Amino acid sequence: MTGDAGTAGIAEYLRQRRAEVDDALARVLPSPPHCPPPLSDAMRYSLTAGGKRLRPILCLASAEAVGGDRWHAMPAACAIELIHTYSLVHDDLPAMDNDTMRRGRPTLHVVAGEAMAILAGDGLLTEAFALMAREPHTTDGVLVARKLRAIEVVAAAAGAVGMVGGQAIDLGCVTPGPDGVLPPPLDGEGLRAMHAKKTGALIRAAAAAGAIMGGAGDDRLAAVDRAAADFGLAFQIVDDILDVQGESASLGKTAGKDAAAGKPTYPALYGIERSRAMADDCLQRAEAALEGAGLADSRLRGIGRWIVTRQN
Amino acid sequence: MTGDAGTAGIAEYLRQRRAEVDDALARVLPSPPHCPPPLSDAMRYSLTAGGKRLRPILCLASAEAVGGDRWHAMPAACAIELIHTYSLVHDDLPAMDNDTMRRGRPTLHVVAGEAMAILAGDGLLTEAFALMAREPHTTDGVLVARKLRAIEVVAAAAGAVGMVGGQAIDLGCVTPGPDGVLPPPLDGEGLRAMHAKKTGALIRAAAAAGAIMGGAGDDRLAAVDRAAADFGLAFQIVDDILDVQGESASLGKTAGKDAAAGKPTYPALYGIERSRAMADDCLQRAEAALEGAGLADSRLRGIGRWIVTRQN
Repeated sequence: MTGDAGTAGIAEYLRQRRAEVDDALARVLPSPPHCPPPLSDAMRYSLTAGGKRLRPILCLASAEAVGGDRWHAMPAACAIELIHTYSLVHDDLPAMDNDTMRRGRPTLHVVAGEAMAILAGDGLLTEAFALMAREPHTTDGVLVARKLRAIEVVAAAAGAVGMVGGQAIDLGCVTPGPDGVLPPPLDGEGLRAMHAKKTGALIRAAAAAGAIMGGAGDDRLAAVDRAAADFGLAFQIVDDILDVQGESASLGKTAGKDAAAGKPTYPALYGIERSRAMADDCLQRAEAALEGAGLADSRLRGIGRWIVTRQN
Repeated sequence: MTGDAGTAGIAEYLRQRRAEVDDALARVLPSPPHCPPPLSDAMRYSLTAGGKRLRPILCLASAEAVGGDRWHAMPAACAIELIHTYSLVHDDLPAMDNDTMRRGRPTLHVVAGEAMAILAGDGLLTEAFALMAREPHTTDGVLVARKLRAIEVVAAAAGAVGMVGGQAIDLGCVTPGPDGVLPPPLDGEGLRAMHAKKTGALIRAAAAAGAIMGGAGDDRLAAVDRAAADFGLAFQIVDDILDVQGESASLGKTAGKDAAAGKPTYPALYGIERSRAMADDCLQRAEAALEGAGLADSRLRGIGRWIVTRQN
């Protein structure tokens, strides 16, 4: 294996896959007259606001890594981006984080009202499962079974034991108890466990769903899942570092907001330098997992490198 | 066929199925430690608040009507009740209908806060699809295909072209335009179209999912779906009548609220007497559809009768 296996030309690979994802996303949402125009507009406003498309690209790359057809994974890839987008819309609501900027634009509730933002989030989440069940259209029993398994993995990751559960833990950190006192801040283990659910679960599910749709056997699926768990942790650590170091303009959201809200972050707990070393450790563990399953040359390795070196 | 075919003993049938549904619902939600305790409590608070369980019972009865095993349909039945419950939780939010009582208890956002109510709704919706994908556990290709199709039907009905779309139309009725003026009230056709999405779609999907899991062929599935569409319309008309006539105590929610909010209702458009006649017409059309498919003796007929004669 060469030093740049899976990483050479990664920027171009990411650009191409992102264009494919954006193209597919532009066609997956229901339109008027079947969908009321204000709801259709609201869902599209948030979905087409840009974003890195990390999760759908990871889904496609995982399907490719295990030797599958990435187009079989495209509906799951899009569905996971719908779920990620809904989670941002609901997270930004006044009752939650009360954020007014996201991906460089006013948040949905600012432009469409709070009620429509709640409904658009609900609609995006529900369409995700409609999309995964519907497409790719097939009567092939093997693909049908893969689709059902991918839905199971994605729904579990997005739900109360996964992403929504992580958001509930996050909410608990800033909610005073009956005595009016905030709970003690999360320690390192608590922070890791919260992020494993809040951001990690859906990133893992993106990779796992891609591997499942690509026809991975148990061993490769497990390796992809392990690598993605470390990708997810690294992604969050880097996110926290960028939140401290970054500027609002390049992040597309309010910089320093987590720290200002008193939310626990990796830099706050460990400092910037050690946080960066932790992200590098994640990458090494992920690469070892991929290598152990014969996937060291896949694009997943390049995606991991990109996650820890990205600037926004 | 006798005059009481499918209707004799319907009260006892409903009681039994409701007990089965309540028993299954008590076991479907994730628990601590996998799910954070406050989120688990919030989801359970709303799910176990009672309710008629019309949708899950209709799902089970449809599976039975087409000669299937109702236990194959139980996960879908429970999933649809999770979806119905999440829709009530989000509908009751301050930004939406701002309701403080539901099923005879304070609404979830009153007891757990707005942010947790949003998350609990998101969690209930997501668990619905996790449940349908996961259970009944099987590697039987026929059942796997039925499960995937049921998910497709339920997700489409619950989403932006179905229930969420209906809620968006409803929201539009009470949202002033840029000029500060409310849109003109819905006429009869607009009201029917709104309810076909807002309440009708999920009731239809409950019946269709039950028929699919019960192994219905295309003809019987279509007949069950047609009957359920009329059941759904009748259910809404009766709901509107009860909202005018009822007392808050027996309804478990604030009576007369829709009329007070200036929301269009069947009694407001057509008067009580004609509204009741419209509900009876629905029932007759539904019975004709069932009879045409050889399902006149099924419990679906009794459920239809109960829908139009219920007092709460």
